[in-house]
This record gives sequence, C-alpha cells and structure tokens, in this order.
Amino acid sequence: MMANAPWVNFRPEIKVLDCSIRDGGLINNHLFDDSLVKGVYQACVAAGVDVMEIGYKADKKIFSPDEYGAWKFCSEDDVRKIVGDNDTDLKISVMADAEKCDYKNDIGPKDRSVIDVIRVATYISQIPIAMDMVKHAHDNGYEAHINLMALSTVQDRELDEALEIFAGSPATTLAIVDSYGSLFPLQVRDYAKRFLNAIEGTDKEVAIHAHNNLQLAFGNTIEAIVAGVNRVDATMNGIGRGAGNCSMELLISLLRNPKYNLRPILECLENHFVPLQESIEWGALIPYLITGHFNQHPRSAIQQRASDKKDDYVDFYDHWNEV
Amino acid sequence: MMANAPWVNFRPEIKVLDCSIRDGGLINNHLFDDSLVKGVYQACVAAGVDVMEIGYKADKKIFSPDEYGAWKFCSEDDVRKIVGDNDTDLKISVMADAEKCDYKNDIGPKDRSVIDVIRVATYISQIPIAMDMVKHAHDNGYEAHINLMALSTVQDRELDEALEIFAGSPATTLAIVDSYGSLFPLQVRDYAKRFLNAIEGTDKEVAIHAHNNLQLAFGNTIEAIVAGVNRVDATMNGIGRGAGNCSMELLISLLRNPKYNLRPILECLENHFVPLQESIEWGALIPYLITGHFNQHPRSAIQQRASDKKDDYVDFYDHWNEV
Repeated sequence: MMANAPWVNFRPEIKVLDCSIRDGGLINNHLFDDSLVKGVYQACVAAGVDVMEIGYKADKKIFSPDEYGAWKFCSEDDVRKIVGDNDTDLKISVMADAEKCDYKNDIGPKDRSVIDVIRVATYISQIPIAMDMVKHAHDNGYEAHINLMALSTVQDRELDEALEIFAGSPATTLAIVDSYGSLFPLQVRDYAKRFLNAIEGTDKEVAIHAHNNLQLAFGNTIEAIVAGVNRVDATMNGIGRGAGNCSMELLISLLRNPKYNLRPILECLENHFVPLQESIEWGALIPYLITGHFNQHPRSAIQQRASDKKDDYVDFYDHWNEV
Repeated sequence: MMANAPWVNFRPEIKVLDCSIRDGGLINNHLFDDSLVKGVYQACVAAGVDVMEIGYKADKKIFSPDEYGAWKFCSEDDVRKIVGDNDTDLKISVMADAEKCDYKNDIGPKDRSVIDVIRVATYISQIPIAMDMVKHAHDNGYEAHINLMALSTVQDRELDEALEIFAGSPATTLAIVDSYGSLFPLQVRDYAKRFLNAIEGTDKEVAIHAHNNLQLAFGNTIEAIVAGVNRVDATMNGIGRGAGNCSMELLISLLRNPKYNLRPILECLENHFVPLQESIEWGALIPYLITGHFNQHPRSAIQQRASDKKDDYVDFYDHWNEV
C-alpha cells in the first residue's frame, strides 16, 4: 500500500548519475575547459552524486581529435588530470556507442583504469554488437550498463526480445532512453513496468535518461522513480544536446536522502554554467517541442536554432507536418 | 480498467483556459500592447481554446490606473476593443482577487457584458468574502469559478472545510493552484483526488493551475489530467509571474482532441512572444527553483532576478536556508 504522503521520506536504493560532460559535449564537440570539468567533478563529490559520466570512448578513426575535445575519447591520462586516483565515493563512467567505439583496443583492463563503469549505448538494430561490448567491458572488470536509445521508435515485439537478451547479459543496469524527448509520463510509466518486469528476479536495476523537449525531463524522471526505477541520469543546469536533460539541481532538490546536498550544485551552476550559457545554447526551446511532437530526432531542430531562421516556428512545423 | 495505451485517444471533457494576459501581466503591470492581446485572442479562437482570461477586475482605489495597464481592470470598453461582440466559441474570463476587487460596483449584470466567466481567486483566510463574490457573480448571470491559491500552505483540515463550502456554492469549477510552484506530481495527484471527491455527485469540475518553478508545470498538469481533472490553465510560451505557467503549446501538442490546433499557437509565439521575451523575463530560472524548494512565494526570487545579484544562487539559497 502507498503511504499517505510517501514523498516525506526517501528511498535509499535510488542512485544518481551525472552526465553533464558526456551529453553536454554533444553541443560543443566536447571542447570544455578543464576547469569546468573539474568543477562538475568536485560538485558531484560534494553533492553526494553516485556516478559521473565524464565523456565518450569514441573511435579516433571516426572522430578526429583535431575537431573533438578530450572528453570524446577519455584517455586514461585525461581522466586522471581531473579526478587523480579518484579516492572518493563517486564512480567514474564513460559511454561507448555501438559501432562508434573501437572497444577491443580502447577499453583495457579495469585494474589499470580509474574508470568504473562502461555504459554501452545502442539502437535496437545494434544489439548484437552492443552485447559483445557489454561482455568485453564485464570481462575486463568494469560495471557494464546498457542504454537502449530512441525507445519511442521501437516496436513492442522488438523491445520484448531486446529486454530478454539484456536480462541474460552481464549488464547491471538497463536504461530507458527517451532520445527524441517525445514520451509522456504515462508512456514512461509503461516502459518502467516493462523494463522492471524483464529484470525481475535478477539483481539488475533500471535507469531513466530523459530529455526536455516537452519540458518533461524532470516530470518523466519522477514518474519513473514512482514506478520503481532506482537509477537516474541528470545534468547540471539540464545541459545536453538540443533541449537538454533532467536538471541535477531539480533532482537533488527532490531526493530527500540526507547524503545529497543541493548547495554544491548551485555553486557549480553559478561559477561555471552561468558563463557557459553565454557561449552555447540548450533548453526546452520551441523547435525541440516540434521535433518531440512529431517523434523525430532533434538534429533538425538543432540546425534550425543554428540558422538565421531560429525563431521561424511555423515554417519548421509545416516542414514536419508535410513530410 | 486503464487501456493499454490510453494516450492514443482523447477525453472530450477536457477544456483549456488561456490566462496569458492575466497571469503574464503580473510581470509588467498589465502594460501590454493591444496588438499582443489581440494576437492572443485570435490564436485562442483559431486553436480551439475554450476560455481566455483577459485580465483582472482590480479595484482602482488599490491599483492606480497611472501605474497599471487596461488588463488590470478590464473595463467593458477595453475588452470590447479586443474581442468586439466575441461572436466565437471562445468564452471570456476575468479574475477577481478577494479583497482586491470592488465587485459590487465593478461587476455588473452579464446581459450588458461580453465577459462570460468570473474567476474568484482566494487564500484560505479569505473564503467568506470569496463566497460572497461567487454569489454576486452568479446572481449577475456569470459562470463563477474559484481558484484556491497557495495550496501548499493549507492544512488538510482547513482544506476539507473549504472544499465542503465550495461544493455547496454556485461555483461551477474549483481550481487547484500551485502558487509557489512547489508541488510534485504525487502531491498533485493527491490534491486532484481530494478535490474530485469533494465535488462528487455535483456537476462541478476541477481545474489545475500549475507553475513552473521546478520545471513541473506541464508534468503536474498531465498528472492532474490523468487523475481526472478536466479543466486546465495554460499560457502562451508559459508566460506568467516568475517561473511562469504550463505552456499552451505543450498542452495543445498533448491533447489529441481534433478541435485543438497547434499551428496558430506557434504563429502567436513567433509573432508576439519572441519579441516580448526581449523586454520582460519569465521561466524556470534557478532562483524560482530555490523558492519552490523552500515552499515560499516567488516574490523574493523576482526581486533577486531584478537585482545586480541575479545569478548569485548560493547567497540566495543560504538566505532561505537560514531563515
């Protein structure tokens, strides 16, 4: 039975992952100053955040280091420049995209790395390679997670199949990913039930990675938590490609576990994200509503915002309404 | 039983109220150009919005017409300048604040007015005068609504008493008002159940008026709709005091009743609200998160944003954490 006012207490199983640098880097090719990356790291430690995802393990044959910053590749040296030996309770994560990561060469044994978690991001069509990546990460001593992207385009029968495969894998966490920012809370509740059913009887956990196209990143995250999801992604100031993500400051203000502190997050926003907002743009702007509305990837909206027609909402709507 | 995918269909009972000018005017003393007010009116008509709240019926002895624009007072002549005889399906509403409206003199018979709805806004301490205002509006031929403000500061036993009084009044609609923008979806669900229980067996409806301090205006509105609330407030671009309201563009994109159209809303945003954003500020900024977090009225956050310390988040947090 649900308590009369369950929000008064907290659920100790809930853990928070910060992906500010990893997802935010999709705006600026991961060209962040070290001081900002260090600011986020220190804020995560002080605020009691559980995991910080510091970037991608991207294949340098696909992404040129001339164009992309250090956090696209997360070499051991670069990560240690920020976290040292990371003698803290904060785990360090990197994301590896299926087909965009040379994992056999670039992900070595855990005992030589300060990285704790490899999160494998996959579309439904890439499951076999994603499973090989999960196995590789696990065999090398890392905690392996799976992020199933673009869920809103996956058919139910495909999803059932994928969840069965994930449940039998060494991955410890399966994330619901609303890549297009088009899901409503009832749909998130429905996905949460499906994912939780699929892992029942295992010691795996379900995660939520929400986007803010419809100003629902935080609302959908809460919906997932209420449905039983215990792993939650968020970013400082909601930074992230396009409309951005669930804001860390909102999430930490919601969670009443005394281990979390809001103040260091606010300090990080004030010192690092107020100036950053002057050079790059993210947030729940109207073109992202329109791509969310039509269940489309936000890339066309990102192009629209970068053009001289950035506020031509009706033209942009008509474009999607006609195709 | 809930359908498997209830969001595919729509609920014809849901009706939408636009309060862009009324609530947005709290930012700029209701000093809007007529062209913007007309733009909102035309967008509401074209988009199939059900009610437009065009402003307040404020007492000129309390608010000087030298300081406040026409939409603080909504004289019959001023309203007709925008809506003519309003030969449309859109109803026109005005808000009357308890103790701030000379209702006996300023609200005359309906048969001489183009206004359809009087919404009485009241704090829990003002219920007796609010009920007299509701009676006056009803006796003069208007549809009367009640907005119970600052719900997050009302005790349960007071709320039960107030709901019983409302249920016995001639008001047709009772609104859940999250004045401090501090409610989470579970709390909104809980209020929705209490309000719906209170009016059971009557032909009254429950409304939701959400604020965006915690980026939950849309999420909380959806939560209320899912719980059975059929009357929904929203504003163009989320305009409203402080963090603003539930965005009309998001709400219309959610509601699948074919009577609603998103395109005229986008046109209104593009033509009127993009330029307006250059002169006045609203939205889910960090100081509003902080007042929401501490369950405080946003007025101190509004002052903070107007000062030269607008991004001093930590100072502002410490201020509230100490008092």
